[in-house]
Amino acid sequence: MNKILIANRGEIALRIMRSAREMGIKTVAVYSEADRTALHVLYADEAVCIGPAPSNQSYLLGEKIIEACKLTGAEAIHPGYGFLSENAAFARLVKASGLVLIGPTPEAMEIMGNKLSAKAAALKYDIPMVPGTEEAITDIEEAKIRAVEVGFPILIKAAAGGGGKGMRIVEKESDFEEQMHLAVSEATSAFGDGSVFIERYVSSPRHIEIQVLGDTHGNIVHLFERECSIQRRHQKVIEEAPSSILTEEIRQRMGACAVDVARSVNYVGAGTVEFILDENLDFFFLEMNTRLQVEHPVTEMITGLDLVKEQIKIARGEQLSYQQSDLKISGHAIELRVYAEDPENNFLPDIGVLQTYKTPKGYGVRVDDGFEQGMEIPIYYDPMIAKLITYGKNREEAIERMVRAIDEYDITGIKTTLNFGKFVMNHKAFKTGEFDTHFVGKYFNADSLKTQDDNEALMAAVFAAQSFKKQSIVTTQQNQTESVSAWRKSRTMFNS
Amino acid sequence: MNKILIANRGEIALRIMRSAREMGIKTVAVYSEADRTALHVLYADEAVCIGPAPSNQSYLLGEKIIEACKLTGAEAIHPGYGFLSENAAFARLVKASGLVLIGPTPEAMEIMGNKLSAKAAALKYDIPMVPGTEEAITDIEEAKIRAVEVGFPILIKAAAGGGGKGMRIVEKESDFEEQMHLAVSEATSAFGDGSVFIERYVSSPRHIEIQVLGDTHGNIVHLFERECSIQRRHQKVIEEAPSSILTEEIRQRMGACAVDVARSVNYVGAGTVEFILDENLDFFFLEMNTRLQVEHPVTEMITGLDLVKEQIKIARGEQLSYQQSDLKISGHAIELRVYAEDPENNFLPDIGVLQTYKTPKGYGVRVDDGFEQGMEIPIYYDPMIAKLITYGKNREEAIERMVRAIDEYDITGIKTTLNFGKFVMNHKAFKTGEFDTHFVGKYFNADSLKTQDDNEALMAAVFAAQSFKKQSIVTTQQNQTESVSAWRKSRTMFNS
Repeated sequence: MNKILIANRGEIALRIMRSAREMGIKTVAVYSEADRTALHVLYADEAVCIGPAPSNQSYLLGEKIIEACKLTGAEAIHPGYGFLSENAAFARLVKASGLVLIGPTPEAMEIMGNKLSAKAAALKYDIPMVPGTEEAITDIEEAKIRAVEVGFPILIKAAAGGGGKGMRIVEKESDFEEQMHLAVSEATSAFGDGSVFIERYVSSPRHIEIQVLGDTHGNIVHLFERECSIQRRHQKVIEEAPSSILTEEIRQRMGACAVDVARSVNYVGAGTVEFILDENLDFFFLEMNTRLQVEHPVTEMITGLDLVKEQIKIARGEQLSYQQSDLKISGHAIELRVYAEDPENNFLPDIGVLQTYKTPKGYGVRVDDGFEQGMEIPIYYDPMIAKLITYGKNREEAIERMVRAIDEYDITGIKTTLNFGKFVMNHKAFKTGEFDTHFVGKYFNADSLKTQDDNEALMAAVFAAQSFKKQSIVTTQQNQTESVSAWRKSRTMFNS
Repeated sequence: MNKILIANRGEIALRIMRSAREMGIKTVAVYSEADRTALHVLYADEAVCIGPAPSNQSYLLGEKIIEACKLTGAEAIHPGYGFLSENAAFARLVKASGLVLIGPTPEAMEIMGNKLSAKAAALKYDIPMVPGTEEAITDIEEAKIRAVEVGFPILIKAAAGGGGKGMRIVEKESDFEEQMHLAVSEATSAFGDGSVFIERYVSSPRHIEIQVLGDTHGNIVHLFERECSIQRRHQKVIEEAPSSILTEEIRQRMGACAVDVARSVNYVGAGTVEFILDENLDFFFLEMNTRLQVEHPVTEMITGLDLVKEQIKIARGEQLSYQQSDLKISGHAIELRVYAEDPENNFLPDIGVLQTYKTPKGYGVRVDDGFEQGMEIPIYYDPMIAKLITYGKNREEAIERMVRAIDEYDITGIKTTLNFGKFVMNHKAFKTGEFDTHFVGKYFNADSLKTQDDNEALMAAVFAAQSFKKQSIVTTQQNQTESVSAWRKSRTMFNS
């Protein structure tokens, strides 16, 4: 494999190219007209324009990507995450074109891409599922019997539903009939179909996922867990490895289950098996993502493995060079997704130009990004600017380092999730590890950051006053504002 | 300990402040007038100007530094490396002023600061020394007897000498008398003293050093070795951990010796015991550095410990939180010192402004620096711009990552050692680990880089020609030069 085309953009395209380069493999970027001067285009050995923004006219056009491979002589395609990365039809097209997809088989994508077939596959092994009905019900008496079997609290979900419509949480048996009536009638009027599923309601869920790697020789290992419970708008924003809640015994059981799920589809490549963990530390299979995850760096930090290199080696037909027993967790890593969005305004995306853009440095800090100062965040794509990852010998150090790195990160011109990240790091529930996916809803509101900012401003004022007293004797930092960059200006706020 | 003054500048001052910040400790910078807008001044919570450049009017003035502590309420001083870091008189002054020095006792500094007293201390334990005479000799017959005892090849050194004057390498016994005569007469005419020392000449030496940490409770551990054999002008320029040549058995013996050397002066804090390793893998004690070393990051990368935090904890009187048996090597790390100097012109220092300055990123890359784009490298100080550190799961990966990171590093306006670093990484002797401190003299000359540059230019031309052919069909990277930054321009050279 001498040349790889990366069918993606932004930080993940750059990240993949870096690993390819270290392996001595040439890289080809594809790009939309909107990304003409993006870093992934500049970093690649060659670059091919495949059409205008938005994605359905460029990054989502499988045919164009195959064409770019032919033109440049690329032998393999790394799809990154998002876009075509879980598209079984594209995977088939790649194969039919005589190219290699760095990823799983189309069959594995297809089975895991559908919740029902995924569950069916997993049932070949003893994989715990959220207890509930396997088929849709309309009969209230039958539903009640099943609800009692499942155990309260339960969730009633419209079989034809989506977006929370026709969904009801029922705390106790005596409330069941009334709620079931309401759910069925809501479902009927919304979808023309009153049938519902009943399942256990996990009131304090944590999102734990297991990274797996499978080679073409039938070897499958897991690389331990990532916890992704800190979410906003049901999307991950802070991830860490290992989880603060898992015991070694649960870790091993979850790992073994994840390997079984992967084995159920003869999984090849890097994949992620997602679980929900309840307040009793019981875990249930949710779904499998058949690609590299955004949050894969935290796994790299604690295992020392470069997951993109592992993907490429697997695609070249190599055997995994280690067994499960060789793999160990070393230290702790946390990732904050730095999004161009406004935490004080419901995390709505923000757009604009990165007027200042300076990234933190030093031991244990990694920034995976796709932008430079002066660049614009395009409106067409996911508004992620960067992933800020910190590593420490333990969780406490990783948190302290994250706070330091956030303070050092200097972005102006666009609102970001940086300060939100600092809020989480400093929050008692996060520090003690006593949180679930409701963290943001429970603890965060627009005023949370205002208080934080006010405290910092207050501290800055106190410090400025102190410095003033010393002014006659020594030159302190506060005297130099005229000679100092924007980096410094932001520092003034954070330093004190 | 709530506030620490950092009596240093540049990358090491920033690096220390980052760790202090993570521990919740406030920082005070001191600076010379020439460093008024340096990053360490901007990063600190407070900053005090202590005089003009050069160092003997500012950074070397102990009294001024103590005064700055008093003014700002700093309770402790971290001296970094260089400047006052191994100055026993300063250490005494700090103590007498009621402040804490983050470093060893003045007594340990004093003993280890002198080669004779250092050897005398080490002799309390069974520490191997380079075989040789302990006292100066003038008598040729006596000298010959001792030379035979020591074993050829030997080195004759003028007792009063320095700078290589009166120094002779004698390969075999039959040459001894003639060379001894020459050495004695050279020494007599140069220094008015004909007496000489005789010691074993290590013809293929490797520089291996052991990091040690001692607390105030008598616990001392070692953090394994660093190899620093790649030197230019007898100064380290590339370091790595672990060494590619040590066996586990030698590592343990060297480690135990280093702990003994430290114990011989009841060592407290971070220190480094330097050894020379000969072609038979016999090692001999050279000296002990009683401070943090420039190259400490490679040890951090393979142990997961933050050495500055360890120093601060020790200075606070805490016990080491681990024993020797808890410490393990994980992966491999390499450091390249990025100096503002010209490898094609005998590594002479270069000065000027960092017209472009963009640092590499991604997994396993760490840059410890003290500059930003647009800043000037001051002529008054050590011309080190940055330390580029890469980490990999093994040596091969750390090397590949270093090459990738060097290619990604974009510095214009000043000549640097980056390309020299690439030359070393790609050299067979370095890759195979078969090198010694003569590496640069043996393999490197001004033309080495020209050839490398020519190859890259050739490859770039070939690629440009290929792209041109495709131009009519797709937009390739080569078509975009008008819209692209200096980062891109340098990329063009490296990409192909």
